[in-house]
Amino acid sequence: MKILTPSLEDYLEELYRFSLSSDSVRVTDLSHKLEVSLPSVTKALRKLKKGEFISYQRYGEITLTEKGKELGDFLVKRNQVLQEFLILIQTDCDIAAEAEAMEHYLSDATIRSIKAIVMFLNNNPEWHKVLLEHILSDR
Amino acid sequence: MKILTPSLEDYLEELYRFSLSSDSVRVTDLSHKLEVSLPSVTKALRKLKKGEFISYQRYGEITLTEKGKELGDFLVKRNQVLQEFLILIQTDCDIAAEAEAMEHYLSDATIRSIKAIVMFLNNNPEWHKVLLEHILSDR
Repeated sequence: MKILTPSLEDYLEELYRFSLSSDSVRVTDLSHKLEVSLPSVTKALRKLKKGEFISYQRYGEITLTEKGKELGDFLVKRNQVLQEFLILIQTDCDIAAEAEAMEHYLSDATIRSIKAIVMFLNNNPEWHKVLLEHILSDR
Repeated sequence: MKILTPSLEDYLEELYRFSLSSDSVRVTDLSHKLEVSLPSVTKALRKLKKGEFISYQRYGEITLTEKGKELGDFLVKRNQVLQEFLILIQTDCDIAAEAEAMEHYLSDATIRSIKAIVMFLNNNPEWHKVLLEHILSDR
């Protein structure tokens, strides 16, 4: 599902995270969280509004449309699966940054297969143990 | 082993592949293979020479130094492992392009873990079969 640019995906992903804990979000919330300037946030939000992922409410609050919630949910879950994968294979790296790179550079097909690996390892802890032995023996 | 930029890694990887089938390579061989202009190849080679990965012979032929062969071997094997991983998880994508993205954007730690997954699946075909069932059931 490559509808948005990586940067817009990050905005929508964060908006969706905010929406899970509060009904609406302000431009300043996003600016702080993503550590980007207010004009950059405003520009991104204009594009997300054009794509009908968000709408503006009175007093400048932002809410996600149904379409925005659906894609936001997909993006957040995709990020979670990749982080879970990296934890399961005990990667010694910045998990958040690595998951971020993977979600933008890997194809949907590979990410779906990785999701299956996560399920496979969660369902079969004894195989996970053997895999970890392979991983640790190579260090 | 992040010594070179992704672009220079690609040059060295290809040089090493050439070196496996012939003693020396010409600038034009690389230019054709990587589909880049001669000036770009020349510029890249100058950097690889400065880093003592290659040396020039008479008539403009290029050979790899011991240091160049070592890193080239690492890069080619890393690419092979990633391609093998993508084939094992039956990713429905451009395997070469995906492996290329992975080798440049994933950390060494994650790639080492992926190598362990490849060994794990090759050593345990019955578990590979179960994993493939997980993967195919999600399509």
